[in-house]
Amino acid sequence: MVIIMQAGAPEEEVEAVVKAVEKAGFRPWVNPGVERKVIALLGAVDAEKIELVDHFSALPGVERVTLISEPYKLPSRRTHPDPTVIEVGPATIGGAHLAVIAGPCSVESRDQMLEAAHAVRKAGANLLRGGAFKPRTSPYSFQGLGVSGLEILAEARRLTGLPFVTEVLHPGDLEVIAEYADIIQIGARNMQNFRLLQEVGQTGKPIILKRHPGCRIQELLTASEYIMLEGNPNVILCERGITTFEHATRYTLDLNAIPVIKRFSHLPLIADPSHATGDWRYDAAAALGAVAAGADGIMVEVHPDPTAALSDGPQSLRPEKFADLMRSLEKVAAAVGRQLSHPVT
Amino acid sequence: MVIIMQAGAPEEEVEAVVKAVEKAGFRPWVNPGVERKVIALLGAVDAEKIELVDHFSALPGVERVTLISEPYKLPSRRTHPDPTVIEVGPATIGGAHLAVIAGPCSVESRDQMLEAAHAVRKAGANLLRGGAFKPRTSPYSFQGLGVSGLEILAEARRLTGLPFVTEVLHPGDLEVIAEYADIIQIGARNMQNFRLLQEVGQTGKPIILKRHPGCRIQELLTASEYIMLEGNPNVILCERGITTFEHATRYTLDLNAIPVIKRFSHLPLIADPSHATGDWRYDAAAALGAVAAGADGIMVEVHPDPTAALSDGPQSLRPEKFADLMRSLEKVAAAVGRQLSHPVT
Amino acid sequence: MVIIMQAGAPEEEVEAVVKAVEKAGFRPWVNPGVERKVIALLGAVDAEKIELVDHFSALPGVERVTLISEPYKLPSRRTHPDPTVIEVGPATIGGAHLAVIAGPCSVESRDQMLEAAHAVRKAGANLLRGGAFKPRTSPYSFQGLGVSGLEILAEARRLTGLPFVTEVLHPGDLEVIAEYADIIQIGARNMQNFRLLQEVGQTGKPIILKRHPGCRIQELLTASEYIMLEGNPNVILCERGITTFEHATRYTLDLNAIPVIKRFSHLPLIADPSHATGDWRYDAAAALGAVAAGADGIMVEVHPDPTAALSDGPQSLRPEKFADLMRSLEKVAAAVGRQLSHPVT
Amino acid sequence: MVIIMQAGAPEEEVEAVVKAVEKAGFRPWVNPGVERKVIALLGAVDAEKIELVDHFSALPGVERVTLISEPYKLPSRRTHPDPTVIEVGPATIGGAHLAVIAGPCSVESRDQMLEAAHAVRKAGANLLRGGAFKPRTSPYSFQGLGVSGLEILAEARRLTGLPFVTEVLHPGDLEVIAEYADIIQIGARNMQNFRLLQEVGQTGKPIILKRHPGCRIQELLTASEYIMLEGNPNVILCERGITTFEHATRYTLDLNAIPVIKRFSHLPLIADPSHATGDWRYDAAAALGAVAAGADGIMVEVHPDPTAALSDGPQSLRPEKFADLMRSLEKVAAAVGRQLSHPVT
Repeated sequence: MVIIMQAGAPEEEVEAVVKAVEKAGFRPWVNPGVERKVIALLGAVDAEKIELVDHFSALPGVERVTLISEPYKLPSRRTHPDPTVIEVGPATIGGAHLAVIAGPCSVESRDQMLEAAHAVRKAGANLLRGGAFKPRTSPYSFQGLGVSGLEILAEARRLTGLPFVTEVLHPGDLEVIAEYADIIQIGARNMQNFRLLQEVGQTGKPIILKRHPGCRIQELLTASEYIMLEGNPNVILCERGITTFEHATRYTLDLNAIPVIKRFSHLPLIADPSHATGDWRYDAAAALGAVAAGADGIMVEVHPDPTAALSDGPQSLRPEKFADLMRSLEKVAAAVGRQLSHPVT
Repeated sequence: MVIIMQAGAPEEEVEAVVKAVEKAGFRPWVNPGVERKVIALLGAVDAEKIELVDHFSALPGVERVTLISEPYKLPSRRTHPDPTVIEVGPATIGGAHLAVIAGPCSVESRDQMLEAAHAVRKAGANLLRGGAFKPRTSPYSFQGLGVSGLEILAEARRLTGLPFVTEVLHPGDLEVIAEYADIIQIGARNMQNFRLLQEVGQTGKPIILKRHPGCRIQELLTASEYIMLEGNPNVILCERGITTFEHATRYTLDLNAIPVIKRFSHLPLIADPSHATGDWRYDAAAALGAVAAGADGIMVEVHPDPTAALSDGPQSLRPEKFADLMRSLEKVAAAVGRQLSHPVT
Repeated sequence: MVIIMQAGAPEEEVEAVVKAVEKAGFRPWVNPGVERKVIALLGAVDAEKIELVDHFSALPGVERVTLISEPYKLPSRRTHPDPTVIEVGPATIGGAHLAVIAGPCSVESRDQMLEAAHAVRKAGANLLRGGAFKPRTSPYSFQGLGVSGLEILAEARRLTGLPFVTEVLHPGDLEVIAEYADIIQIGARNMQNFRLLQEVGQTGKPIILKRHPGCRIQELLTASEYIMLEGNPNVILCERGITTFEHATRYTLDLNAIPVIKRFSHLPLIADPSHATGDWRYDAAAALGAVAAGADGIMVEVHPDPTAALSDGPQSLRPEKFADLMRSLEKVAAAVGRQLSHPVT
Repeated sequence: MVIIMQAGAPEEEVEAVVKAVEKAGFRPWVNPGVERKVIALLGAVDAEKIELVDHFSALPGVERVTLISEPYKLPSRRTHPDPTVIEVGPATIGGAHLAVIAGPCSVESRDQMLEAAHAVRKAGANLLRGGAFKPRTSPYSFQGLGVSGLEILAEARRLTGLPFVTEVLHPGDLEVIAEYADIIQIGARNMQNFRLLQEVGQTGKPIILKRHPGCRIQELLTASEYIMLEGNPNVILCERGITTFEHATRYTLDLNAIPVIKRFSHLPLIADPSHATGDWRYDAAAALGAVAAGADGIMVEVHPDPTAALSDGPQSLRPEKFADLMRSLEKVAAAVGRQLSHPVT
C-alpha cells in the first residue's frame, strides 16, 4: 500500500500519517527528497491491508491511498483510462495526430543543424531533435558541443518554428537544458538512472523516456513512475530496439511492445527506427511498421551529409530519403486513422 | 567453390568432374542422395580458385560453378534480382498482391474447419491454413487428426475455392500430405531438419519455411537453400517471432527482419502475428505493422470459438475480429502500394 | 489428467477406458501410433478431476493416472526423487562419476577417428563421440560419411574399449544407427522433432538430448517426456549454449541451467563446452565451470588436427590441450565430490 | 588516433597539439572537463595516420599517441599484458588470491548489518558489501538509509577489520561515499552513465564496475576506459548475469564472459551469483562455476534473515548456507590454483 500526500503537505501531517501507519502495525517508508511525499507500508502483502485504505485516506494531507498489484501505478490505464495528449508548441503528441521528430544525432555545427532543421521542416516534421550533450560508448568519440549546441538548437527553433528535443546526461547540466529545450530526453542508457528521473520530473517539462535495449516493458513503465511521481504527467515513452541474438541489425525493434504498451498505459508512445535498426536502409520500413502498429509518432535521425556525421552516420537518413518517408508515412497514418500534425508543405 | 551438375547428369560425368577437382589439387565433396549432384571443393578459400571457374564450367554435365561468399546462394538477390512471385490457384504470393492465409491452428472437426473456412473466405482471405499433423511441445497435448484432417481440409477447399497450407512433421507423412495440400509448411521447429527440407524440396510443391524462434535470418536463408537445391524455387519465408528477454509477449516479432530479408533475398516473405505475439489482442497491430514494413502477406490463426480450441486458443482471432483486421489491412496495404489478391466480398 | 495404459494393453481395454472417460463427461484424446497408449482428458482443469483418479486407476490395462500441473511428468524429481544413473559399458553417467565424452565433431576418415580415439582414451575420456550423419547449416558443407562412419566408430570402440555416441537426423537412418551406437544423440536442431523423439524412445538405447539454443529449460524437459513416454528412461540431457545478444562467443553457456535442471529433474545432465563457446580457447574454462556447478559430465570436441577439420575446427581441442583439461577436471571434480569413471592412465 | 597529454599539461601545449592536428589535415576533438586532455583525430581511418604517430609523439606535453583498432585501450591486455592486482586493506583482488565480498543487499539497520558482517567474516569473506543508496526499479521500494547507512558500514569495518564496498548512484553523493567507502561500486544500471564513470575515476578509489544485463562484453570494457582515462587504474569488472529468453532464472550468468574477459583484459573480474540467478538455491552452484572458470572472486548477498529483507531477500543466502558455500569454494579455488585471501577461521 502506498499513501500519496498532497503536494506541499506540511511536515506535521506527514508525521501524523507515519505514526498512524506504525500504530496499525506496519513499518512506514517515506520517499525522501521530493516535494510530494509518498509513504509506503513495508513488510506486508497488500491483501492484509485493504480495510485500512479508508482509514488512511481520511487523514489530513492525504491525497490518495493505493493498493499496488503492478509495480507501476501512475502510467497505468487503470488510473487514467483516456490516452494522454501532450501539446508542445504547434505539435501534438498522442491522440489523432502523429508526431514526427527529426534531425541529426548530434549538433555538430550551426550550418549542419540549420540545414537539417530546414530540410525536416520542409518535409513535414513537427519537432526537431539534436544532441548537445552526447552519451558515447567510447570516451574517444565526439561528446557534443554542450551549451553552444543548445544555442544553435534555439536558433533553429526560431527559424523554423519547430520545438526541439535534446538529451540530458548529468544532473549538473539539467538546469541549462531545461532553460533551452522544449522536451527533455532521457536516453536509453539512463532509463534506470532513478535520481535523474526524479530530477527531470521536477522540471515539469515534457520528457521523452527511451527504453533501455536490455530492459523489459514493465521496467520502462516503472521508470516512468519515477518521473510522474514528481508531479510531471508529461511523459512520452520511446521504443528504440532491444538487444537480441539477431546480428543482422544493431537492435531489434520490438513491434509487439507497441500494442502491449498501448494496452497497459495511457502515455504517448513513439518509435525510433534509426536506433532500432542502426541502418538507414531499414529506417523507412521500421517507421512505417511502427506507425501501422499504433505508435503515436516517430523520432528519426536526418543528417545533411551522413557520411560526414560525427555520430550515427550509418543510421541517418539523407533529407531526400526522409522526404520520401514522410510521403509514405502520411498514407500509412491515414490508413490507421491518424494525420500528421503539420500537413506536408 | 561449388560445382552444380545438371539434373540427371550421368554418374560418369560426375566422376569426371570429381577427378578434375582432385587433379586441380582440391578435395571434392559430393552431396549424397539427391537428384542434382553438387560437388564442393573443400579445404581452400574461394579466392584461390577464381581462375578455375571457367575450367570446371566447361566440363560435360556441369550446369554452373559458383564462388560462395555468403553461406547461401539460391535465395540470394544476387543470383535472382527480381522478386519471386508464386501462384497457387487463385492466390498470388509475392509481387503487388498481398497473401492472407487464415484458419485454425489445428483441424479439430469437420464443423469447426468448415465454419472457419467460410468465415475467412467471406472476410477476404485467399488461402486456408489448418494443421492435421501437429508438433506439440507436450506429448499430452492434442496431436492432430492426421489423414482425416487432410480430407476435411480438401473439402473446405472444394467448398470455398481457397487452396490450403498444412504442415509436415515426419518424412513418412510427406507423400500423403503432398497429395492433398497446395502448400506444404515446414514449421519453425523443423527449420533446420535438413533432411526433411531436402525431401519437401523434391515434391516441387510451394513450401512455407518458418523461421525458428532461436535462429538468425542468415540461418533461415541458408535453410531455404536446402529446399531450392533440390530444384524447387517455390519457397515462401515466414517470420513468426523470435525468443528474447521480453516476457510480455510469447515471442518478439522481428520487424527489422522484413526489410533485411527483402534486401538480401528475392523470396516472398510473410509474417505470422499469431505466433509472434501469442495473444489475439496484439495480432492486428502486429499484422498491420508487418505489412506496412513490406511483408508480402500474413498467416493468422482464426477459430470460430477460441475458448474451445484444442491448440493456440489464446492467440486465435474470432471471425469478426478477423474481418475487422481485413478492413484495416486493405487500407494499410493500399498505403504501401499493395492490394489483396481477392477483393473483400 | 493423463491415463497411461500398460505397454501392449489390448485395444478393448483402451476402448473401455475411452468410454469411461466420455461417460465421466470429458473428451478423451488417445496418443496415436505408439506402443503404450496414453489417454488424456481434454477441456477441463485438473482440479476438477482429482476424485476420478482412483476411478480410472482401477480399470483393466491402466498402469497409472497422473494429474499434470507441470507440462512434463516423467523427467520430474517429483515422480522420481533419486537421480538416474545410466551405465553404458564401462562408463557411468550420473551419480558420483563424471562422464567425459570426447572425440571429433565428424568422423572424417579411419585414421583421423582412430587417432582421436586413442588420444582421448589415453587422457582419460570414458566415452567416444563422432558424427557419421551430420546436420549442417549449409548444404555445401561436409555431410558425414554415413554407415562407413559408423563402422569406423565401431572399430574405434573395439580398439579402445570405449562406447560411442553418434547422432541421428532422419528416421530412415535410425535402425542402422541403433545397431552400431551405444548412445544415440538427438542434436539441438532436432530437440523438438517430436516424432523422431518418439522413435528413438522406442529403441530403448540411452539417448543424449541436446537443448536447442533457442529453447527454454522447460521445453527441454518436456521434450524428454516424449522419449520417456515410449518406455525409455535412459535420457541424458545436455546444455550446449543458448542464443543471446552477446557476440563474443557463438552461444552463451547457460550455467544457471545446471542447478535449475538438477533441482527439477532426476535425469543426468552434461555440458558441451565446445558448442557453447564455439572457440577452443574457452572450452576448458567452460568445462570446469560446468562441472563445478554440478554437471554430471562433459562432451567435448577433440581433433588430431583442428585446422584440417571438415567441421567445427575452431572449437575443437588438440589432444594435448584435452589432456591438460583432463588434469584440471580431475581436481575440480574431486573438489565437488566427484570422480572420473576411469582414472587417468 | 588518440593523443593522450600528460596530466596537467598546460593549455598552451594542448593548443599547440590541436594546431598541429589541424595542420596535418584532421579535425581535432578535445575531451572536455577532465584533468588529462585527450585529443582525438576525427574523420579519418587509422591506417592513414600511422606515419603521424612519431610526429605527434614528439610534441611538448604529449604522453603517448595511440592507434585505436578496438574501441577500448587502457583495459586491454595489449597495453598491459600482466594481470592487475588490487590491494584493499587486508584483501587482494586479482592474482592468486580469491576475493569474497559478502553482506546484505541493503544496510537496513545497525543490528542487521553488524550481524551479517560478523557472520561473513567468520565464514571467511574478506570484504563487506552493503547498499546505503539503492537503485530501485520501483519508487515505492526501500531506497536505502543514505549517510547513516555509510556510518553503519564504517562501524562494521571497524569491528571486523573488513573493508567495504558500496554503490554510488548520483554525482551529488559521491563525495561522502568516497570519504567512507574502500571500494565504490558502479551498479549495472549505471554502467553507461558516462559522466558518473568519469567522476568516480577522479576519486582514485578502487571501482567495481558491474556489467549491465543488456550490454555486451565490449561495452563493459569500453565503459571501464572512461574510468581509467581519468588516471584510475583500479577497476574491478563484475559479471552479474545478462537478460536472455530463459525465464527459469532472473538473469543468465554469462559463464563464457569469464574466459573472454580474461583473454582481452588485464583487469580483475568477479562474479555476482546472487543477481545472476535471483534465487539463493542456485547461488552456490553459480559461484563455484564462476570460480572454476577463472573468476578472481565473487560478490554474494548474505542476510541474517532473508525473509525479512527490504530488498533482494529471495536471492540472499542465510549465514549458514554461506558458510557451506565457503567450504566448497575453498576446495574449488584450490583445484584451480587459487586460495582465499583469508584462511577460513
